[in-house]
Amino acid sequence: MHFENDYLQGAHPAVLQALMASNEENLPGYGADAYGAKLQDRLREILACSQAQVRLVAGGTQANALVIDMLLDDTEGVLAPDTGHVAVHEAGAIEHSRHKVITIPAQAGKLDASLARTYLENFYADETHPHMVFPGMIYISQPTEYGGLYSKAELEALAKLCQDYQIPLFVDGARLIYGLASPQNDVSLADLAQLADVFYIGGTKVGLLLGEALVFTKNNLPKRFDTLIKQRGALLAKGRVLSVQFEALFKDRLYLDIAQDNARHSQRLTQILHQTGFEFYLDSPTNQQFICLSKDQYDQLKEQVGMSYFGLDDKGQVVARLATAWFTTDADLDQLENLLRSL
Amino acid sequence: MHFENDYLQGAHPAVLQALMASNEENLPGYGADAYGAKLQDRLREILACSQAQVRLVAGGTQANALVIDMLLDDTEGVLAPDTGHVAVHEAGAIEHSRHKVITIPAQAGKLDASLARTYLENFYADETHPHMVFPGMIYISQPTEYGGLYSKAELEALAKLCQDYQIPLFVDGARLIYGLASPQNDVSLADLAQLADVFYIGGTKVGLLLGEALVFTKNNLPKRFDTLIKQRGALLAKGRVLSVQFEALFKDRLYLDIAQDNARHSQRLTQILHQTGFEFYLDSPTNQQFICLSKDQYDQLKEQVGMSYFGLDDKGQVVARLATAWFTTDADLDQLENLLRSL
Amino acid sequence: MHFENDYLQGAHPAVLQALMASNEENLPGYGADAYGAKLQDRLREILACSQAQVRLVAGGTQANALVIDMLLDDTEGVLAPDTGHVAVHEAGAIEHSRHKVITIPAQAGKLDASLARTYLENFYADETHPHMVFPGMIYISQPTEYGGLYSKAELEALAKLCQDYQIPLFVDGARLIYGLASPQNDVSLADLAQLADVFYIGGTKVGLLLGEALVFTKNNLPKRFDTLIKQRGALLAKGRVLSVQFEALFKDRLYLDIAQDNARHSQRLTQILHQTGFEFYLDSPTNQQFICLSKDQYDQLKEQVGMSYFGLDDKGQVVARLATAWFTTDADLDQLENLLRSL
Amino acid sequence: MHFENDYLQGAHPAVLQALMASNEENLPGYGADAYGAKLQDRLREILACSQAQVRLVAGGTQANALVIDMLLDDTEGVLAPDTGHVAVHEAGAIEHSRHKVITIPAQAGKLDASLARTYLENFYADETHPHMVFPGMIYISQPTEYGGLYSKAELEALAKLCQDYQIPLFVDGARLIYGLASPQNDVSLADLAQLADVFYIGGTKVGLLLGEALVFTKNNLPKRFDTLIKQRGALLAKGRVLSVQFEALFKDRLYLDIAQDNARHSQRLTQILHQTGFEFYLDSPTNQQFICLSKDQYDQLKEQVGMSYFGLDDKGQVVARLATAWFTTDADLDQLENLLRSL
Repeated sequence: MHFENDYLQGAHPAVLQALMASNEENLPGYGADAYGAKLQDRLREILACSQAQVRLVAGGTQANALVIDMLLDDTEGVLAPDTGHVAVHEAGAIEHSRHKVITIPAQAGKLDASLARTYLENFYADETHPHMVFPGMIYISQPTEYGGLYSKAELEALAKLCQDYQIPLFVDGARLIYGLASPQNDVSLADLAQLADVFYIGGTKVGLLLGEALVFTKNNLPKRFDTLIKQRGALLAKGRVLSVQFEALFKDRLYLDIAQDNARHSQRLTQILHQTGFEFYLDSPTNQQFICLSKDQYDQLKEQVGMSYFGLDDKGQVVARLATAWFTTDADLDQLENLLRSL
Repeated sequence: MHFENDYLQGAHPAVLQALMASNEENLPGYGADAYGAKLQDRLREILACSQAQVRLVAGGTQANALVIDMLLDDTEGVLAPDTGHVAVHEAGAIEHSRHKVITIPAQAGKLDASLARTYLENFYADETHPHMVFPGMIYISQPTEYGGLYSKAELEALAKLCQDYQIPLFVDGARLIYGLASPQNDVSLADLAQLADVFYIGGTKVGLLLGEALVFTKNNLPKRFDTLIKQRGALLAKGRVLSVQFEALFKDRLYLDIAQDNARHSQRLTQILHQTGFEFYLDSPTNQQFICLSKDQYDQLKEQVGMSYFGLDDKGQVVARLATAWFTTDADLDQLENLLRSL
Repeated sequence: MHFENDYLQGAHPAVLQALMASNEENLPGYGADAYGAKLQDRLREILACSQAQVRLVAGGTQANALVIDMLLDDTEGVLAPDTGHVAVHEAGAIEHSRHKVITIPAQAGKLDASLARTYLENFYADETHPHMVFPGMIYISQPTEYGGLYSKAELEALAKLCQDYQIPLFVDGARLIYGLASPQNDVSLADLAQLADVFYIGGTKVGLLLGEALVFTKNNLPKRFDTLIKQRGALLAKGRVLSVQFEALFKDRLYLDIAQDNARHSQRLTQILHQTGFEFYLDSPTNQQFICLSKDQYDQLKEQVGMSYFGLDDKGQVVARLATAWFTTDADLDQLENLLRSL
Repeated sequence: MHFENDYLQGAHPAVLQALMASNEENLPGYGADAYGAKLQDRLREILACSQAQVRLVAGGTQANALVIDMLLDDTEGVLAPDTGHVAVHEAGAIEHSRHKVITIPAQAGKLDASLARTYLENFYADETHPHMVFPGMIYISQPTEYGGLYSKAELEALAKLCQDYQIPLFVDGARLIYGLASPQNDVSLADLAQLADVFYIGGTKVGLLLGEALVFTKNNLPKRFDTLIKQRGALLAKGRVLSVQFEALFKDRLYLDIAQDNARHSQRLTQILHQTGFEFYLDSPTNQQFICLSKDQYDQLKEQVGMSYFGLDDKGQVVARLATAWFTTDADLDQLENLLRSL
């Protein structure tokens, strides 16, 4: 039984099919192919943002490091919740680009706008701030690393804060599609395009072999973007590998189908875990669920159910993550339910 | 007619087939899957190098920048021919990793070992060298950016030089497979594994969607390699995308078939260009040919034949590149021949 | 009245005198002069460490950034108390060298060895740690940024922890001399040389125009040190400017006289502030005292007494720093006492 | 006999006197003292440039690396003559800041504007230039590393080129004062302020203990300059050390006296070397002279006369540098003349 993560299998069949169908077309390299252009047009429509500039890169850490470095100047760091992916699980990619990740204690994985505002106020009130790292942007994830969702009101508060301090808001959407159909979600892709200065729509975790679609919403694509990503080893010769897949994801309503199927599966996973008596680390309305287990329980259960280690809780219990994904089936969940009821 | 480069089409059908066949397997992420292990075993066999350590990354500039930065210390730069890819066409990726590319005038794209030796001798004889960048490794490409091949004797001379100065020899093999079956080639993959400290076998240009296979031959895989590439945004969540493709390329003799087919096609291309009277910029025994055209000729011919701009020659003529690849067919060459004969 | 910091005046007269006396000597540049050699001999004697390697740089932020970058590999960050200078007041110098500052909540400015041990234990227990920044060294300041002193036992606990994890202990001694004669101090320079892998003795704040003396105690001077600091713009052509001053500081017992005079003055400052009823932010046994004032009090008092802003306390009061230094006189303190008693 | 370089002795007596006279003044740190303000006013007057912004740093390599990094964006490198200090003798400081030094073959140490123009024209004509490092500024030295001087017409041609391509012109003036009184010089400080976007006036080599005065002439001081140099370890706590010295150098006409004395001494040195039959590597009108010696001659002469090694000439002879400086006396030159005549 495999619930350890949402990148266990290859690509959604329709996505793979698109790669095959286009395989023998002669296409220009380095991101200049027509699939990329079609994708941008389609996303402008979906996002209701006619000026959106879309660029594709291979992975999430790459996307985060590129955007953060491009949007900050040398004196600036990025404000992030202390559970943010950039703060914890990117092996120092942001620092490697010479910027500090300035952490604010997260509230169940989320960055609270009023805490961030206090940080900014105190920073500029401090007479010594010219000897400190300037907070130059805000980074959040939607859904968060713990499956949480910002409400539209919460995002508006963050966007307002950014506007007040004239710094950009950047949203890591590695699992954005999985949040869309959550019953708790009130943020549309169009809302995000309006509120964020830059965000990305993750492909790797929702059915692509690889790929993340960066969206610059405010006519703010960095100058010489292709040169910049070539320099950092992020420009694929066969850019088609990314554009063909994303174009297939958004062409009709595949992305919505994936979102809705997953919403159903993740709710069932949550229900199963509740009904079989597991302690939840926190409530998550999206495709990742976090339960607390003793080390022994964790080791035993792991022999039968694929799960991921996610640190320790306050009581020293292991926090284990179970995830559903586009490849999760009802049969998988039946099997899990049977096992857990039998323990 | 498309001869502009060797990454115009997607993947070789057998490679694409391997991706499809494995698509629904649940595989661990971040390069820990069984396909990667099988590939390493197979390459150790082909390379006759039982200690070879194989790691996969997405592209050539990424591979070059990662290896060079990992093998140099902060005081060191990389010695390269002045036509080397790292010196010209990587948008400063090496400098972005904080290392100087120390260029030696190339001889038809190749680095001459005796010129490099003179550089090293003069460097250490210069009393001021502690205020200069130390030459810390040698970088070459096989085949070179201009299609040339180092002979085994030439590689041995470079390897000897590296040994004398205790610096590594790194070989960029983005088109390595295309050199293997060239009538001029006397360097086997096993020779390369013996002479180079690190090299890579390009996949992107010989029939993979993307991917380059790094080979560390001397038990010299950098410590915490996965952390290092995660940090630089080069660790794919679905490492399978690379391992499955490479495993297919080397499983049986697909790589050799591709090499031999291409050798035949590239020789025919050379012949066609010779017979139709084009001036060659230099002689190339591999899949890229370079011809000199007036700007007008270039613009006209380009309307019918895909070619790439490769700078100007001494007389101010455009150097144009035509390339064959795994997807080139006899029919493509027939069509080109007909056109050129009719001009 | 000037108590705002300990770098308000130029150099101690004896130090300035040494610069003048040596001014017309023709000396080799870039740190190769005889004064540097004499200084190293003398410090080996004082430190009871015959293998100590001494190198001089211009300032504290420069010293910290150089040492931390030289001692870490690319996967590593530096563990520091969250009030540490490198974490707060160096404008991101450590991140600019591409390393994360991993902060541990400070205990009155100090890093508690058991908290640091817990961090290290949890780090290696976390299955995802290869995707995190490795803790590669420990940084502390003696005295701390809040004037505190580590006891010998506390330093031994940190040194033991470093040994257990095979990481170096680095001590920022920008104000080290001011701690030596504090009644609370039980750590000699020789103790420090034994316990720390690298430390530095600040000159700028104890009577030099500029300069910090780095001491590598374990035969661990980084390879090509001069090239490394030349590259970072830290190698002065006239290295004599640093060596002559430091040699004067340590030649006889000037450094001890400065330490003892200051101990007397700083105790008197503490006494005056206590007796005139100020609230202390924390207890400091060295040359800096921290008092809590309402914003109005701070603004008023600052018109007559030079002080520095040091953030806000929990109640929102301004924390103000008053410092004594080698140039503080009894008359200065009399004047301050008179003023404060008259308020 | 000491002619090996121009930083053999401490400071000019008048400069040292200024340090002593101001020693007990309580001055704000980090460059905010009144001496710096006075210096800026005075330089604006001398430079006939009322908007000049003056900032002080410790050394030449530091100055070069800071300015070049601040003025370039990530896609850009700096165009320099291949003998330029930044290209050869700064241990890779520019690459360490992640920028390529793009070298143009120097003409007797100078960058020829028409060669640079050809480089820029070819760069933008090359269809692959987005995969190359963009030439983002021009760096030259006045006088050059080989003592040469750009004429006003040559500087105007470079300034025109920079204007045409909208890139800044940066002039390294480590020995600028020594060029001012050369009979061949037709460039005033005011000319330089008009033609260069940024330049610096070296202090270290003309009579200061340390220090270089950066001049931003076009209202182009980088944003948050102090934070940027703090981050790179280049902000001295006691900024007075630099400002007091420079203020003394420019207050009256000390800088002109030094320039004129040196012009006289350097002409005499040239004359002595000519008359005693030495072969010159090239003609230099400023304080450095370069002669060619066999290795044996070099080793022998060096036992009696301080000289510096400056590489090899085309015939394999050692190029030796002899320099005069503010501390050179007629007696020194008499002694040298007597020795050379007696050989």
